[in-house]
Amino acid sequence: MKRARILLDGTVHAAVEEEGLLRLSDGRLIAPEAVDWLPPVEPRTVFALGLNYADHAKELAFKAPETPLVFLKGPNTIAGHRASTRRPADATFMHYECELAVVIGRTARDVPRDRAYEVVAGYSVANDYAIRDYLENYYRPNLRVKNRDGCTPLGPWLVDAADVPDPMNLSLRTLVNGRVTQEGSTRDMIFDVPHLIAYLSSIMTLSPGDVILTGTPEGLADVVPGDTVTTEIEGIGSLVNHIVAG
Amino acid sequence: MKRARILLDGTVHAAVEEEGLLRLSDGRLIAPEAVDWLPPVEPRTVFALGLNYADHAKELAFKAPETPLVFLKGPNTIAGHRASTRRPADATFMHYECELAVVIGRTARDVPRDRAYEVVAGYSVANDYAIRDYLENYYRPNLRVKNRDGCTPLGPWLVDAADVPDPMNLSLRTLVNGRVTQEGSTRDMIFDVPHLIAYLSSIMTLSPGDVILTGTPEGLADVVPGDTVTTEIEGIGSLVNHIVAG
Repeated sequence: MKRARILLDGTVHAAVEEEGLLRLSDGRLIAPEAVDWLPPVEPRTVFALGLNYADHAKELAFKAPETPLVFLKGPNTIAGHRASTRRPADATFMHYECELAVVIGRTARDVPRDRAYEVVAGYSVANDYAIRDYLENYYRPNLRVKNRDGCTPLGPWLVDAADVPDPMNLSLRTLVNGRVTQEGSTRDMIFDVPHLIAYLSSIMTLSPGDVILTGTPEGLADVVPGDTVTTEIEGIGSLVNHIVAG
Repeated sequence: MKRARILLDGTVHAAVEEEGLLRLSDGRLIAPEAVDWLPPVEPRTVFALGLNYADHAKELAFKAPETPLVFLKGPNTIAGHRASTRRPADATFMHYECELAVVIGRTARDVPRDRAYEVVAGYSVANDYAIRDYLENYYRPNLRVKNRDGCTPLGPWLVDAADVPDPMNLSLRTLVNGRVTQEGSTRDMIFDVPHLIAYLSSIMTLSPGDVILTGTPEGLADVVPGDTVTTEIEGIGSLVNHIVAG
């Protein structure tokens, strides 16, 4: 099942996808164009992976990491499908990053890799924008790069884990104004979803609603105000975002 | 006013300090020993400052930073007064860090320094433990250093901002098993509270319940299971924590 959270006439509704339409929990069937899309989950902790596709690490001139490179993002960064995201006025590089988002469904600690999928509620699509001007200081990535308001569109759907039999073999792509600029497959992750869940839960407790952004393949490009950026993952969804001036 | 959140007979209560006792919102007056202390706020985003006291940067052999070094912590890290915190079995160095915690009271964006105190709800004491074994990788500090469950005791009180006329001139100290091991003053911060609020709010929106951990002065020492660690800030509180084996 594909689940969404939407805003209609000032009220937040849970909805599920039904033949291209939205079936609200009150029974109404609504066209997707008629609603404001909210992020499909309200995340607690948002983990993001750096350099988790070998081709992307190479693109940024980094050696592939030997352990997962994880940082946290604040809830202020999360935006819904069709939202607008600001490009800061002084930015030189604003890069999209199409990423598979893993949503945790249960409290979990010390999960073995071969049981990791048991703690996954489902999957979504994220666009983990980076302002690449500010990578210099000791604590990387600093907040100017990865923690601006609305810099992480998420959605449109939370797709139930049961409907994603092989999350490690999904094609991803990004389109800027309809032209494909990034293509890859989740099979090229350096640390796969079970590895990431085992790693994170060996350090700390994972909680329902935690989100893991699993990194992006190569194919970054700068986006500017006026651009429409669509990040897509096979079977998970097509997430549309608009760049506006900051 | 000093505000607390406590657990009594399975129920969470708001309480205020009254002559050394806790006045619950239902009117009862309770001894502080008779309750379980919760963190005085349930933080949304937790910001933490690295190397924000020049003496401490020197102690760790770093040059003092030119802009604030900020990283995020997850809500899993927050623990209350008198909680126990685990020292991981394989840790070589577990350092306490006594820090002034600033709690944001209003939604705030682009706050000028001279109006920064207007967005502060109050102050608390934090102990921002660090497992110093794992500083090596590209994304610093990594989750093993600063994001383990319960590694950030916070409390006992949220002290109203109106009762803290000069937050930039408070003495701090840490006692391990009753012996003073760390002493400093908030006046020695490199980036003071107004600077930090202006800086953070220039990047992103601050929200009520956000917490800024403002860094620690020199005087770190390793703590081991069985130790009682008390972090104190003049006029704000005395936060007790127990180290247990992980």
